[in-house]
Amino acid sequence: MALPSKVRIVEVGPRDGLQNEPGQLSLEDKKQLIEMLAGAGLSHIEVGSFVSPRWVPQMADTGELFAKLARKEGVLYSALTPNLKGLEGALAAKAGEVAVFGAASETFSQTNINCSIVESMERFAPVVDKARAAGLKVRGYVSCVLGCPYEGDIAPAQVARVAQDLWDMGCDEISLGDTIGVGTPLRTQALIEAVAAVVPVEKLAVHFHDTYGMAIANIHQALLLGVAVVDAAVAGLGGCPYAKGASGNVATEDLVYLLNGLGVEHGVDLGRLCEAGWFISERLGRQPTSKVSQALKGREKDCLLTHL
Amino acid sequence: MALPSKVRIVEVGPRDGLQNEPGQLSLEDKKQLIEMLAGAGLSHIEVGSFVSPRWVPQMADTGELFAKLARKEGVLYSALTPNLKGLEGALAAKAGEVAVFGAASETFSQTNINCSIVESMERFAPVVDKARAAGLKVRGYVSCVLGCPYEGDIAPAQVARVAQDLWDMGCDEISLGDTIGVGTPLRTQALIEAVAAVVPVEKLAVHFHDTYGMAIANIHQALLLGVAVVDAAVAGLGGCPYAKGASGNVATEDLVYLLNGLGVEHGVDLGRLCEAGWFISERLGRQPTSKVSQALKGREKDCLLTHL
Repeated sequence: MALPSKVRIVEVGPRDGLQNEPGQLSLEDKKQLIEMLAGAGLSHIEVGSFVSPRWVPQMADTGELFAKLARKEGVLYSALTPNLKGLEGALAAKAGEVAVFGAASETFSQTNINCSIVESMERFAPVVDKARAAGLKVRGYVSCVLGCPYEGDIAPAQVARVAQDLWDMGCDEISLGDTIGVGTPLRTQALIEAVAAVVPVEKLAVHFHDTYGMAIANIHQALLLGVAVVDAAVAGLGGCPYAKGASGNVATEDLVYLLNGLGVEHGVDLGRLCEAGWFISERLGRQPTSKVSQALKGREKDCLLTHL
Repeated sequence: MALPSKVRIVEVGPRDGLQNEPGQLSLEDKKQLIEMLAGAGLSHIEVGSFVSPRWVPQMADTGELFAKLARKEGVLYSALTPNLKGLEGALAAKAGEVAVFGAASETFSQTNINCSIVESMERFAPVVDKARAAGLKVRGYVSCVLGCPYEGDIAPAQVARVAQDLWDMGCDEISLGDTIGVGTPLRTQALIEAVAAVVPVEKLAVHFHDTYGMAIANIHQALLLGVAVVDAAVAGLGGCPYAKGASGNVATEDLVYLLNGLGVEHGVDLGRLCEAGWFISERLGRQPTSKVSQALKGREKDCLLTHL
């Protein structure tokens, strides 16, 4: 088991992090967040979703956001597109990559996107075809890869089947999502081994939520198995807005700290990243859940020395 | 690299977790916390410190706490004893184990215990001798094993020298403390390998603070290298009381969740442990920093389902 020399971080904060925020954030704040993230060195940023505003009101302005964004050379700006209508929006917005999102759990698929896994694949196929024909890269998300809120444990073989379907359909990268953050390193290992048997490991990304505090350990495990693309959200955005302290995505700041400690290249400036995290957290009226961000802020206040 | 089949958790919350709390907790609350922890299945609990109340006012009642504690059969109740006077207190209190605490950093040793590393060893030797003569087990702590707030990085070889001195002196177990929580898995690996070359790995414990969110990943790494004793504090007690959200010790709840996921035995009931964590956190006027504890509480409120 050897670590990759370089990792690509996919910053999902503006999309996965913000999509469930109940209070509408201004377009200007979203634009500033994304520009700060690009300024910190992130080279792949998920800007938003082209979904029905009835489903996800916070993402209703994704098209306008793409239009107003000052794009930085070398940065990939991507968006979620569940169907052909969404793809049209992404093409009009000149997104650099689109993503379809399926589930490894049948019940979750029905509940989240109102169709069976098989039906979701039939819906995605023309989206993937048309996106590729237009020269866009396509990402395929698989949710609930380490557990489902309805079905409990999900077998690695089941995840591998869904991942292979998305791969065979033409997706360029498959992101494996521990949507409810229940995974631990041993199950992460079994998952990666099962999926890497059917999709090349260099085409896999991991997407951990930190609900149970295991995300960094799980990412480390995945890196040791050859995974070199990791999703994360600045400030750990994406928690349940109704539960104080509940965790969302793994914080990009904590991921960067891990990679620094492992000597793995990533291209991100931790200080500027923390600034972006504090900016959006202040707009949301709370602290970043990133422990790294909190610790660095504490150090500024000379607090670290008081509790030794 | 193989995981141990069983891990002994050393619960340090009542001591390391509470020692820096500015508001004096009542003896009754401390007693109830420790009894709840024993009730949850923890078999080794650090009750307090026999140190000068001028140094650590929160620990001034350790002797009285030992006297009033309803002890549970099979549970080891231990205490810190920096010198012979402290040892006398521990013997009078019928502590089951005592501990001396040194540092791997010369500057930290001077700052924290007002003497050089060599002088600290000269001070500890008679404490260890007398404790062993009285039939007590002795634990040796080494702090700053992965970094020092004054000196920065600490070489694994330097930690190994201090650990070997404590081992040669007669300590039964050496606990390696990442006091400021800066470690990452690769440096944890180098540390354990260096120390295990001079002290049998089954006599090592790891003690991580979660300041930068790396504790669970570091513990997983240490387990893979054969370490089978892990220190933790219920509710993640031990953060800087002046910095909201700053992290202390790794939360015992999160450690238990990790061990459950790895199939490693530990003997602790997670539900009852969480209750102990919420009890003491409410007394301190805050939430547990344990993500597991927060997530399980959130689930009770059906919140988990709202943010998928």
